[in-house]
Amino acid sequence: MHKYVYSFNEGSKDMRSLLGGKGANLAEMTRIGLPVPFGFTVSTEGCFSYYENGGSLSEEIMEQIREKLSELENVTGKTFGDSENPLLVSVRSGAAISMPGMMDTILNLGMNDDAMAGIAKLTDNPRFAADSFRRFIQMYGNVVMGIDSKLFEEALQSVKDEVGAKFDVDLTAEDLKEVIARYKVIARYGEEGGFPDKPVDQLMEAVKAVFRSWNTERAILYRKINRIPDSLGTAVNVQSMVFGNMGDTSGTGVAFTRSPENGENKIYGEFLVNAQGEDVVAGIRTPKPIAEMADTFPEVYKDFVNIAHVLEQHYKDMQDMEFTVENEKLYMLQTRAGKRTAASAVKVAVDMVEEGLIDKETAVSRIDPESVDQLLHPSFDAEAEKEALLLTKGIPASPGAATGQIYFTAADAADAVEQGHKALLVRLETSPEDLAGMVAAEGILTARGGKTSHAAVVARSMGKCCVSGCSELIVNEEAKTVTIGERVYHEGDFLSLNGSVGNVYEGTIKTVPPTLSGDFGTIMSWADGIRTLKVRTNADTPRDAKQAVAFGAEGIGLCRTEHMFFEDERIPAIRRMIVAETEEERRQALDALLPYQKADFVGIYEAMEDKPVTIRLLDPPLHEFLPKTDEETKLLSEQINVPYEKLLKVTADLHEFNPMLGHRGCRLAVTYPEIAEMQTRAIMEAAIHVKNEKGYDIVPEIMIPLTVIDKEMEYVKDIVVTTAEKCKAEAGSDIKYMVGTMIETPRAALTADEIAKSAEFFSFGTNDLTQMTFGFSRDDTAAIIKTYVDKGLFKDDIFATLDQDGVGKLVDMAVKLGKATRPNIKLGICGEHGGDPRSIEFCHRVGLNYVSCSPYRVPIARLAAAHAAIKNR
Amino acid sequence: MHKYVYSFNEGSKDMRSLLGGKGANLAEMTRIGLPVPFGFTVSTEGCFSYYENGGSLSEEIMEQIREKLSELENVTGKTFGDSENPLLVSVRSGAAISMPGMMDTILNLGMNDDAMAGIAKLTDNPRFAADSFRRFIQMYGNVVMGIDSKLFEEALQSVKDEVGAKFDVDLTAEDLKEVIARYKVIARYGEEGGFPDKPVDQLMEAVKAVFRSWNTERAILYRKINRIPDSLGTAVNVQSMVFGNMGDTSGTGVAFTRSPENGENKIYGEFLVNAQGEDVVAGIRTPKPIAEMADTFPEVYKDFVNIAHVLEQHYKDMQDMEFTVENEKLYMLQTRAGKRTAASAVKVAVDMVEEGLIDKETAVSRIDPESVDQLLHPSFDAEAEKEALLLTKGIPASPGAATGQIYFTAADAADAVEQGHKALLVRLETSPEDLAGMVAAEGILTARGGKTSHAAVVARSMGKCCVSGCSELIVNEEAKTVTIGERVYHEGDFLSLNGSVGNVYEGTIKTVPPTLSGDFGTIMSWADGIRTLKVRTNADTPRDAKQAVAFGAEGIGLCRTEHMFFEDERIPAIRRMIVAETEEERRQALDALLPYQKADFVGIYEAMEDKPVTIRLLDPPLHEFLPKTDEETKLLSEQINVPYEKLLKVTADLHEFNPMLGHRGCRLAVTYPEIAEMQTRAIMEAAIHVKNEKGYDIVPEIMIPLTVIDKEMEYVKDIVVTTAEKCKAEAGSDIKYMVGTMIETPRAALTADEIAKSAEFFSFGTNDLTQMTFGFSRDDTAAIIKTYVDKGLFKDDIFATLDQDGVGKLVDMAVKLGKATRPNIKLGICGEHGGDPRSIEFCHRVGLNYVSCSPYRVPIARLAAAHAAIKNR
Repeated sequence: MHKYVYSFNEGSKDMRSLLGGKGANLAEMTRIGLPVPFGFTVSTEGCFSYYENGGSLSEEIMEQIREKLSELENVTGKTFGDSENPLLVSVRSGAAISMPGMMDTILNLGMNDDAMAGIAKLTDNPRFAADSFRRFIQMYGNVVMGIDSKLFEEALQSVKDEVGAKFDVDLTAEDLKEVIARYKVIARYGEEGGFPDKPVDQLMEAVKAVFRSWNTERAILYRKINRIPDSLGTAVNVQSMVFGNMGDTSGTGVAFTRSPENGENKIYGEFLVNAQGEDVVAGIRTPKPIAEMADTFPEVYKDFVNIAHVLEQHYKDMQDMEFTVENEKLYMLQTRAGKRTAASAVKVAVDMVEEGLIDKETAVSRIDPESVDQLLHPSFDAEAEKEALLLTKGIPASPGAATGQIYFTAADAADAVEQGHKALLVRLETSPEDLAGMVAAEGILTARGGKTSHAAVVARSMGKCCVSGCSELIVNEEAKTVTIGERVYHEGDFLSLNGSVGNVYEGTIKTVPPTLSGDFGTIMSWADGIRTLKVRTNADTPRDAKQAVAFGAEGIGLCRTEHMFFEDERIPAIRRMIVAETEEERRQALDALLPYQKADFVGIYEAMEDKPVTIRLLDPPLHEFLPKTDEETKLLSEQINVPYEKLLKVTADLHEFNPMLGHRGCRLAVTYPEIAEMQTRAIMEAAIHVKNEKGYDIVPEIMIPLTVIDKEMEYVKDIVVTTAEKCKAEAGSDIKYMVGTMIETPRAALTADEIAKSAEFFSFGTNDLTQMTFGFSRDDTAAIIKTYVDKGLFKDDIFATLDQDGVGKLVDMAVKLGKATRPNIKLGICGEHGGDPRSIEFCHRVGLNYVSCSPYRVPIARLAAAHAAIKNR
Repeated sequence: MHKYVYSFNEGSKDMRSLLGGKGANLAEMTRIGLPVPFGFTVSTEGCFSYYENGGSLSEEIMEQIREKLSELENVTGKTFGDSENPLLVSVRSGAAISMPGMMDTILNLGMNDDAMAGIAKLTDNPRFAADSFRRFIQMYGNVVMGIDSKLFEEALQSVKDEVGAKFDVDLTAEDLKEVIARYKVIARYGEEGGFPDKPVDQLMEAVKAVFRSWNTERAILYRKINRIPDSLGTAVNVQSMVFGNMGDTSGTGVAFTRSPENGENKIYGEFLVNAQGEDVVAGIRTPKPIAEMADTFPEVYKDFVNIAHVLEQHYKDMQDMEFTVENEKLYMLQTRAGKRTAASAVKVAVDMVEEGLIDKETAVSRIDPESVDQLLHPSFDAEAEKEALLLTKGIPASPGAATGQIYFTAADAADAVEQGHKALLVRLETSPEDLAGMVAAEGILTARGGKTSHAAVVARSMGKCCVSGCSELIVNEEAKTVTIGERVYHEGDFLSLNGSVGNVYEGTIKTVPPTLSGDFGTIMSWADGIRTLKVRTNADTPRDAKQAVAFGAEGIGLCRTEHMFFEDERIPAIRRMIVAETEEERRQALDALLPYQKADFVGIYEAMEDKPVTIRLLDPPLHEFLPKTDEETKLLSEQINVPYEKLLKVTADLHEFNPMLGHRGCRLAVTYPEIAEMQTRAIMEAAIHVKNEKGYDIVPEIMIPLTVIDKEMEYVKDIVVTTAEKCKAEAGSDIKYMVGTMIETPRAALTADEIAKSAEFFSFGTNDLTQMTFGFSRDDTAAIIKTYVDKGLFKDDIFATLDQDGVGKLVDMAVKLGKATRPNIKLGICGEHGGDPRSIEFCHRVGLNYVSCSPYRVPIARLAAAHAAIKNR
């Protein structure tokens, strides 16, 4: 006979998968001698059996439940349905992983007319007894039998109306008995297929209801979102009731062993006298701070503090506990690891290491890397945010909080900031030309684009708050208004953005600066000691580079050169280069750009000192640099003295239907080698200059984008090497340098062995690799991806978390092929995935040397890399 | 000692790679006893040795050449540089594969003052002797020594001026000796490093010059274009001279054993009395038809006819021969397989099988699949085309010839045709809305787009001539003019297009209809007996389907449903569907479309009878169906009674930056399942209808486009199956059907094992697969691809010939993964590559079941499939 049902004294905390989290912890508390109302758990194997049996309990399981019930009656000295000393139980679901969406709790199971009489006698409180019965019928009727709650509410109201009662509490025991009578009719009490009168039948039905609740739509959705396997199943906990509502010597509460808000080592929680748990949850009465319990129940409080300490020492983690006091006796109803803010997590972990409770590795693995983001950005004052008027929600594209006056062009935003205002830049979508405005603004709000839109990527790289793809926004850039629902906001109006969740508020909200405490630094240094993956940053400016180094970046994995071209002084030169008709003209324009580029790289090298820097050659299609409007085109025509019509023709000629798959990346270097030559010269001259000036050991890593085939790589490498050698000879320098490539087309990954013959390093550009592997454009498919995730077709947003089955297969293949050709090839990732913890674990596993991410994700990546090392040890 | 030099009696035709084609055939003719002037061949191994020696002949090779020279002197009884009976030789290059671009021929090598005297005595013609010497100095000076020919021409002219000669023939022997004297100065005759006086030195230098010519730019380019490996090397043939210019008893000629134009079994060629081969080539004198030789040299002609027959029987192929008659004695100088038109190739192959000369397999493998295209389209009268004014060249996008009046909109072209004109449609680029005009026009000319542009793909599918991407065109659609260079053409002006080569001519040119002779049918039926790959067609209309069946298609591999939507009657309904705001509205619009779609499919099924038909669900992004101009939008607004502003908003909302990677393919079915439902219903109802009416055994193959992940395939399949089962139930039909998918994203290929769990067939959409694997958009990268091919970075246009190393790796992977999951999975290809012979060979090799191509490429594919079967046996 298989064992499906376990008494609380038969289990332990290590039996989570069998007993569920709640059941295992009840057993554990029982095992270590804490006061837990006795009971038993129907295991998750019971759940499997239930589904295998087509949704019914086998005789075997029912028999075991009956046995355990007898044991429970013996232990408690109470009897199910007894009119003298009736046993009442709670029935709670409990999976291995805590999961809202399943049936939560049925209290007072075992109630019927006899039991009600017994309780009335025992408590000398017939009203309490009747009210308990009434609540039980309603709860069970709704949760187990699926009866619409409204029917019960209407019956209750009708009695209240008849007796002239305003509130529930105005009803007498007799009134409540009338309610019970009417409830019984609704629930077809005692009828075949109706509400069972026999407590044991009630129990069996309740157990089945818990099992059923495992597969409600909400539960399934929750599991899908949280990647919990459907195969876990849930257990059912049956526990004898204790009553916190038996008068002023009783009560109930929830508490944490330490503060879940800031980690302070002090019991944190609330309690209510003469109440059951559900009263706390329902918010009918305001609970009191737990410390006040010391006055109310001094002995019980002492017990509780002691138990809290025992539990924390036992579990070696901060605990979240539920308890009930019945007639001054303390009962523990639940304990589990407490959820906490990032700040709390960091302090608790560091404190516990200092207390000798856990080791550093455990401390590090307790910090959710993603949560650390909270510590790096300003946030709204929680109270103030609650009170603010939420206008709409967009995509939380870059975390943090920002309050400011809205402006609709980059120039207006920049001007406003210059005049001392705080600005929010509101755009349909941003483009590289908006950069100055984005730098100036406190935050960015766009109507279009997902987490990897231009606005999102740039904002994250600057650690600036951004809400993108806010589809309810109607932005009128000409009228300088934005309409949200019925409300219209004009230039200069105040809005507030919460980029961590995507909320858009009206008016101003108080912000709180980030708190990078010493404990945070301690955790990060421990993480650094554990991880083997290096963490670099994607940075295009000395400012970003410095910020990233401050966050612990060990190099630059991707320095894009194109953003540099958009600055006011340079854009005419780059445009002159684009409209050049001969190589000669193009070279002249490039010569004008060279000093700027060189200065850019000097700044970067100075910021990074000895750390490695990978600089990517020009990547975007040239039309991105051309003016978009007629006005701008006319202006440019004057600026660079090229006829307007010719500019129009160049623009038309450069037009592409699918620029993502067009004339960009190293294709530019193939068609215009002189661009690659200028950039190589700028890189080498800058590196030689800083090396000579400062004595840093600089080894430039020159990266060729969008390679598809070995011969192309050889061709462009040849241009780079020829130029670099010239620079070395001219400067009499023996500086070393490396030439490598992005692996960002499927073909490059598939033929990485050939490409590695000339490429000295690979950097996986998983943004483009994902776009091409899936045929999903980042700019166009945010809504489709959302639909796919919602329908369960995608596990994740493919641009946020690396698709390991498809894109990852290509990465893995490229790693193996690349190493086969060049065993010491340097391997990194510089797509957005480089800052995503789950993707980082994948990078660790396939054997990359480093990940590179935006500066503000560097700490997250460091932690995630440590987690990966621990997990894959 | 390694043997580098072979006498003509030491080799045979099987030694091509060692002796080159020319040398092997000279040896073969010698071996079978034909009259060949004796000589020897320096092998291709001599060529490798030359390059290994840094561009010089090893002593070993030189020694062997000297030995063979002695032998030649013995055999001929002549001596190098002898003043009585001098030996003169020709030196010719000859690689294993015939290759223009290399050094061709040096005649009369061995000439010096003594030899000239000897020749003068022997021929009793001092002028001939002097002229031969003069010509030799000039040819050798130019070809071997690299002296500019102009210098020689000037010297010649100066002597002519001095003696008052108008033509070369006016120069006397003495005059020519003066020329020789001046030539000697130019060539530094007899000096150190100058022109060698000693014949054996001349010979050594000439051999080296031939080896050098293997690596001239032109030769390298030719090899690249024709995919000839650089490693083959060339041989050098040294042959004793015979003279066709020794008076009226001598002559020279070239001839084919059968007609290279039409295959007629009759000697075809030309000859000249008293002439050397170069005179024929130079075109100074007009040669006579070979038949007239029967009168001039009756005996020699009889010999020649006999030898031609011997050669053809021996080589079992039509021969292209060169010969010389010296004093009524016939000498064979060369034989090789004759180049021929497709028509000739077909007739020769079929005749030779009937003559018992070759077997059917050989006959089939003699026909170049690509050449068959010539037989399927009208062409220009060759003479008329030569005389026409060539205006410009574009991309030869769809073969054939067309003459007509130009029109600039689809409507104008259609109107003109209705009024009895022949129209050419001239557009900047075409879009699906131009379909009616394309159908009506004789040919299509566009300024933009490559071989896989819309214009090209559609034109090919209709067998209609198209020249695309003609960048010199300035099309002004409003003014209805097209400017080419200085010339402006207006609506109604006549132009002519040669879509096989991309030429655009002014005015009309006479066209010749295609000649599908009975022999062609015979060859095709033999090919069908050999091939194992099935050949299907891509066809969207009953008309195309019938055309393809006439060409031998065995089914439809890709029936696109989107083109059907563009017809005038339907487009309002599809637009109404697109702007629908609710599923309800959308369903109403779809209901209106259903009868049309069903009728489409009924037509297709009726045309295809029992043959399999794969129908793809809607693929393109919906914005393709929306109006492009303001005017059209306003019109639509009235047509479907939807406010203009709303239409603008829908258009803006549907805008995509990269539509190729956007909301298309089965993503449409995921977001709008009702579209897939309507299409499935149309397919099933049509199939059931035709099956019931005609009794054909129809098994619809419903194809889901652009799948990326297994769950998506399951999701859409579920929609299809649910609908299909409903249709079956409604009609009481037990019809079978299959649901499969395009494999056209890299991810689908990478995870084909998962996708095959629900997909019953795969069709490789290698157009999109190539686009995504490379990150090259077909619409945008024609110019880049050309640059890549020109620079040798790509072997081929990746959209014309499948990239086997990258895209092919994915295909191969998907085939293996798919079969692992579903061993009997049906596998085909429906990208443009399905009609490309080399790609077809790949498809055969990786184990696909069929290829599918446009109707006009079906015969090509059938032949190519037979070739693949033969080659991979």
